[in-house]
Amino acid sequence: MKKKIPPLAPPQRLLLGPGPSAVPRRVLEALALPTIGHLDPCYLEIMDETRSLLRQVMCTSNELTLAIPGTGSAGMEASIANLVEPGDRVLVGVNGVFGGRIAEMARRHGAEVETIEVPWGETIPIDRIEGALARGRGFKLVALVHAETSTGAHQQIEEVGDIVHRGGALLLVDAVTSLAGMEVRTDDWGIDALFSATQKCLSCPPGLSPVSFSGRAVEALERRKHPVRSWYLDLSLINSYWGASRTYHHTAPINMTYALREALVLVLEEGLEQRFGRHQFHHRMLRAGLEAMGLAWIPARTLTTLNAVEVPEGIDDARVRRRLLEEHQIEIGAGLGPFSSRAWRIGLMGASSSAENVMTLLAALEEILRGEGHPLEVGVACAAAKEIPGQGAAGPR
Amino acid sequence: MKKKIPPLAPPQRLLLGPGPSAVPRRVLEALALPTIGHLDPCYLEIMDETRSLLRQVMCTSNELTLAIPGTGSAGMEASIANLVEPGDRVLVGVNGVFGGRIAEMARRHGAEVETIEVPWGETIPIDRIEGALARGRGFKLVALVHAETSTGAHQQIEEVGDIVHRGGALLLVDAVTSLAGMEVRTDDWGIDALFSATQKCLSCPPGLSPVSFSGRAVEALERRKHPVRSWYLDLSLINSYWGASRTYHHTAPINMTYALREALVLVLEEGLEQRFGRHQFHHRMLRAGLEAMGLAWIPARTLTTLNAVEVPEGIDDARVRRRLLEEHQIEIGAGLGPFSSRAWRIGLMGASSSAENVMTLLAALEEILRGEGHPLEVGVACAAAKEIPGQGAAGPR
Repeated sequence: MKKKIPPLAPPQRLLLGPGPSAVPRRVLEALALPTIGHLDPCYLEIMDETRSLLRQVMCTSNELTLAIPGTGSAGMEASIANLVEPGDRVLVGVNGVFGGRIAEMARRHGAEVETIEVPWGETIPIDRIEGALARGRGFKLVALVHAETSTGAHQQIEEVGDIVHRGGALLLVDAVTSLAGMEVRTDDWGIDALFSATQKCLSCPPGLSPVSFSGRAVEALERRKHPVRSWYLDLSLINSYWGASRTYHHTAPINMTYALREALVLVLEEGLEQRFGRHQFHHRMLRAGLEAMGLAWIPARTLTTLNAVEVPEGIDDARVRRRLLEEHQIEIGAGLGPFSSRAWRIGLMGASSSAENVMTLLAALEEILRGEGHPLEVGVACAAAKEIPGQGAAGPR
Repeated sequence: MKKKIPPLAPPQRLLLGPGPSAVPRRVLEALALPTIGHLDPCYLEIMDETRSLLRQVMCTSNELTLAIPGTGSAGMEASIANLVEPGDRVLVGVNGVFGGRIAEMARRHGAEVETIEVPWGETIPIDRIEGALARGRGFKLVALVHAETSTGAHQQIEEVGDIVHRGGALLLVDAVTSLAGMEVRTDDWGIDALFSATQKCLSCPPGLSPVSFSGRAVEALERRKHPVRSWYLDLSLINSYWGASRTYHHTAPINMTYALREALVLVLEEGLEQRFGRHQFHHRMLRAGLEAMGLAWIPARTLTTLNAVEVPEGIDDARVRRRLLEEHQIEIGAGLGPFSSRAWRIGLMGASSSAENVMTLLAALEEILRGEGHPLEVGVACAAAKEIPGQGAAGPR
């Protein structure tokens, strides 16, 4: 039975895709700290610290703020499953993969779903949300994707909370690719349910999904007539474990919680405003460089954390990405759905957002595109990026 | 905004509770290897290796063998959610917390649930399963807990598969606390859906749940009339990511997969038979020691991986556990439900199952019990443990 299996040796990649992003050394070190029990008093204290740090990063005082024990889609489903009961009416903005996923999940949890659909890359016009609510259909929930990871589109949220509340509904927001990289003001914007993921702008490995529910959303949980269809994602049960009673629900992903706590500490050590500025600056550098190479931006209203550009005419998308990975150890993302083979998605998230990374990518991409026959002057991309005023700060290591 | 938060410093505990168990250094080192992308060719290869290693440890050739991105209860719910459609009849053996949890989950996924209930600590008699099936109620699924973590009871599974299949049903087995510590022969025993967790006898941090579905169970998935109620736990979607098409479903918990792969390698390097023998031997040592102290075993048919004993008359359960933790850094588990304050649950799982750990616990517990006024001769527990013939092997470090 004894056999020798080769040791695990994953390569050191430069992670500039739609996630995971680069994980700082301090976060990996936290991940490998000694495992303790999920009811150990020391672990319970780490949970308390983690939820307090999460509240700061999410700009909320919501009591129900915690990390769902699964990846980002688990937080998405927990948010929906707990707010939706069979027959509830839900309005979903769909402008990419993740709006569509929210709609699909809401249907599985018994909702009657109405969608506002716009072409991929665009954002949902606020007046269409107002219009749908005004038609008086009694929506319980309105769901929007703040940062559409499939298209790089940046949805306006700041004024939507009031509109949704006047319409008698709750506001659910997907902040997977924005939290800790761009402004997300949970309380000020009137967001009732927010979910995110660890492997994007928090620069922690994937495996946990931070969520936060407002007092209004918690009241909706308490008024439920039917049990949540998923036991594992039942927030009332999960919150009993995170809360004062410490009622056992699941064995928490202990080491992942260590890593998340450390990632949150790094965010707050840098400062939120500083961090958003860093993401903004490196996005502008990247944009100057890519546009100098003739690459067109896809969304009119773009994220600074995830950048979607068109693959130039005549260039083989998959071949370029493969060469970036094999020759330069750089990962960027492919297009999804209608953007398959037509878009590249370049993430500058968390620790991945640095001037050095922008320059490394621009130089490598330029070299490969020239090799693939795309007409480019040598050095044009890096030169354009360097002209952006301001200074690039390195992210946490 | 910049603040100084104290560094994370979890204590080094001796984990002898119901999980997590001690995590070997090699597994923690694997956990902290560089994060790569969830669609990186190197990561896809690691997934393939992991599922191949899982098949060996689960004694199965099932194609659908993978790790659910959540803790053990996520694997439990995935197994149920995918096999149950609204109105399906499900038979569940309930002799502790986890049988009860299976029944609750099956109800949430729309099943009509019938339970066979026996007192906690006992196991489900096979003739009662046969009887329920013979009454011709058209059960689709029979669910049993091989290793009931709340009571230490060891359910007989080996002959149940044939009985269940003759009754036209599928067999679902909870092997959370047995897999890789005791014999679990998925194919030979006719198990159609098996789930486990990483933090028990696999000695990996919590966060993933290995599952395996037989060809029969996969046919049931393919014949479904309704979508699975949980999108996140939809095995057909998850399997498309693990399978040849590599269709994106969720961002895999990359670093946890590294750790699981390393933990599985350690299991196979030791050898399954050798490992089961190690768990058996240390269980016998522990039992001799605890019985010499006058502690009574709870289940008649006991697991070797998790040992449930009665708290002696007049002893304050919580106080003893607190002293073990604070004075000796040893974690053992409390009783749950009807065993609350009345039982201790002592895990000797994976790397935690060693002669040194048994002796350390016996000496510490004896010292504390004497201090608490329990009449005991000094050294009686360790002396009894040492008399067990055979030799204790250390688990992987």
